[in-house]
Amino acid sequence: MLHRKGILMKLYAEMTVEELTQEISKLKKEYKIMQAKGMNLDMSRGKPCQDQLDLSMGMMDVLSSSSDLHCEEGMDCRNYGALTGIKEARELLGDMMENNPKDIIIYGNSSLNVMFDTLGRSWAHGVMGNTPWCRLPKVKFLCPVPGYDRHFAMTEYFGIEMIPVPMTPDGPDMDIVEKLVAEDDAIKGIWCVPKYSNPMGTSYSDATVRRFARLKPAAPDFRIYWDNAYGVHHLYDDHQDYLIEILAECKRAGNPDLVYKFSSTSKITFPGSGIAALATSPNNMTDCLAQLRFQTIGHDKVNQLRHVRFFKNIHGIVEHMRKHADIIRPKFELVENILDEDLGGLGIGTWTKPLGGYFILFDSLPGCAKDIVDRAKKAGVTMTPAGATWPYGKDLNDSNIRIAPTFPSLDELEKAMRVFTICVRIASAKRCLALKEGQ
Amino acid sequence: MLHRKGILMKLYAEMTVEELTQEISKLKKEYKIMQAKGMNLDMSRGKPCQDQLDLSMGMMDVLSSSSDLHCEEGMDCRNYGALTGIKEARELLGDMMENNPKDIIIYGNSSLNVMFDTLGRSWAHGVMGNTPWCRLPKVKFLCPVPGYDRHFAMTEYFGIEMIPVPMTPDGPDMDIVEKLVAEDDAIKGIWCVPKYSNPMGTSYSDATVRRFARLKPAAPDFRIYWDNAYGVHHLYDDHQDYLIEILAECKRAGNPDLVYKFSSTSKITFPGSGIAALATSPNNMTDCLAQLRFQTIGHDKVNQLRHVRFFKNIHGIVEHMRKHADIIRPKFELVENILDEDLGGLGIGTWTKPLGGYFILFDSLPGCAKDIVDRAKKAGVTMTPAGATWPYGKDLNDSNIRIAPTFPSLDELEKAMRVFTICVRIASAKRCLALKEGQ
Repeated sequence: MLHRKGILMKLYAEMTVEELTQEISKLKKEYKIMQAKGMNLDMSRGKPCQDQLDLSMGMMDVLSSSSDLHCEEGMDCRNYGALTGIKEARELLGDMMENNPKDIIIYGNSSLNVMFDTLGRSWAHGVMGNTPWCRLPKVKFLCPVPGYDRHFAMTEYFGIEMIPVPMTPDGPDMDIVEKLVAEDDAIKGIWCVPKYSNPMGTSYSDATVRRFARLKPAAPDFRIYWDNAYGVHHLYDDHQDYLIEILAECKRAGNPDLVYKFSSTSKITFPGSGIAALATSPNNMTDCLAQLRFQTIGHDKVNQLRHVRFFKNIHGIVEHMRKHADIIRPKFELVENILDEDLGGLGIGTWTKPLGGYFILFDSLPGCAKDIVDRAKKAGVTMTPAGATWPYGKDLNDSNIRIAPTFPSLDELEKAMRVFTICVRIASAKRCLALKEGQ
Repeated sequence: MLHRKGILMKLYAEMTVEELTQEISKLKKEYKIMQAKGMNLDMSRGKPCQDQLDLSMGMMDVLSSSSDLHCEEGMDCRNYGALTGIKEARELLGDMMENNPKDIIIYGNSSLNVMFDTLGRSWAHGVMGNTPWCRLPKVKFLCPVPGYDRHFAMTEYFGIEMIPVPMTPDGPDMDIVEKLVAEDDAIKGIWCVPKYSNPMGTSYSDATVRRFARLKPAAPDFRIYWDNAYGVHHLYDDHQDYLIEILAECKRAGNPDLVYKFSSTSKITFPGSGIAALATSPNNMTDCLAQLRFQTIGHDKVNQLRHVRFFKNIHGIVEHMRKHADIIRPKFELVENILDEDLGGLGIGTWTKPLGGYFILFDSLPGCAKDIVDRAKKAGVTMTPAGATWPYGKDLNDSNIRIAPTFPSLDELEKAMRVFTICVRIASAKRCLALKEGQ
């Protein structure tokens, strides 16, 4: 039992039917008052806020009509060419991704698109000479849950069967991953957001990364889809997660071709107007380029140049990310404080306290997530749909709720979170009451 | 018989063995002299030259750090969203493509990529509910020849069988097209560059477009791949080709879903840093968006805004294209003049005199194209490989040579063309001699 604002807190599970009924009645009054305010707040997507976007406005000035738009190797970036990207962009993103620039292809404006392309190529043409997936009776992917809804959506679009694998605080449950990939050659991939993961915000442990690099998949065309979307997206200067670099670890483990690694500057500069990249082994790269040369003559080199001239080098990116952190750190802390304040000691939910990334994961009592999100919606607060963090949108426990605190202002965020916690309490109290009443 | 520089010209075909032998000997001396100059000139690709690229440098100034990057509908172009593109970009490209903005999706930097995506989607997911092509025993495409090598290359990459259809001065031979699509439901598409076509530079006649819109394909998922790459790329102000707008014509003909129309600003602003677009019927668009929403959150809206703010409207594009024409028209005229001057009256080749686009097609005597291109290469002049204008790189007549006059300077172009015409004359004389000698 805890005290909150001087009031003795009691675990909902320990409340009597009478206490729960009273609590619900009191909360519903609070809810009605909030609902009457006619709010329209959105915590559903991991979008940067305007202040964050303003940080990159200088990028609009680095190229002008008097600029020389030749890249270091002498190519005119305004004309066709450079299928793998310009050298200085590969170097900058190489430093950012901790990979050899030679192992990097710079793509267009979205890493999601690169992932889709990778699935599409494997589907139509196969991976490194293996049977195209479209010719196989069954293709499966492992999907650590909770995970990123857009990964799952594109996988489902290709008709790939998705197998949920539970996440632990150290990353996906590797006992399960190792077993499944070793025994089923229909399993062709696994989705990973290894650092400040979407939606937990936690990072894979060294042991997990080591085990990934040492997987012994039955399928020769099994690949790890390593979406390192938040590699430099720290919230704190002095307290950061470090991840073992997966390409290097795979190489050391004698499995150099095991991984595709994706990244982009979407949440560094402008989402939709950044540059994306793939890092992978020379064999995989040859395989990718065999498609890419038919697909395009080259990606947007002027935008590559713009990014390089804006950041200059990796230190420029790090300094820039520090400014992002200064804007969004208070939002993460606000969410955590409100969750502590409003829900601490009630035993009706747990939540992560990430050191980076874009999300906080709230885990409600089983069977409450959908109810909570629906209630919030009816009070004008849009959360990521319950279930979105699971393949096919089906959270078996109905407990994961992804909180995206970056986009709203602090003021809006506080309002939205107060609505959210009331909704959590109502849904949880109702759930506890139903259990007590044996329904 | 004609006179050239006061010398009586004689058709090679009418020359005696002796005359031909003499001619070859004389030409080889000229060739040696040219070869000794150690030239390194490239007429292989349709690339804009630096002066053309300079025309768009103003585009680097229209957005600055003090710009408001919201689009007309109020969306912040720096953030995620706008899957089909921002309204003003759809309007601008709508005016350029002569289509309703609502029928347009703005994509990324390359229409080639949009075409590849369209093939990929049809392959993996099927067209409007029809069987995905990957599940069919055979998929075929009609390929008007001569045509665009990159179309053929991506078609081959998907393992689609390509059937050449002869081009006439009015466009593809529609008798053949109508017959083939009506009788074979494995034929799923036809590649068209309808205006200032690659490589002939000619445009489809009204009758041809009308017949296209009235095709009765056996396959319900047959589509016309209408790559209108040179829609606004006129060389002359007062003498331009007009094309019946295909989407409208298909709608009038009761075949609204028959066509995918592609375009981009690649040869208007910067190749690789432009914006591409697809125009198609609402049904086809729904089908495209069903994939696109998994593929990306949106294309580069900042670049869309940059284009709109630079051109303002379609008149801005037209004025801009006039400047392009002023730069490249003299190059086209130079090529035509040199061909007239060096080859006129010899009966060893014909060539097109286009009113727009990026190419001139030279047709040699049958069996000479490869020899000509090889000889030019050995004298330091790179042409598009012979055969490139045909599926599988195999020109059945070995006679098409694509000339791309835009990239070299006038001075370089003259040098390159003089080498070219000498090579044409040597190869042709040798061919005529071989025929005379009965080899």
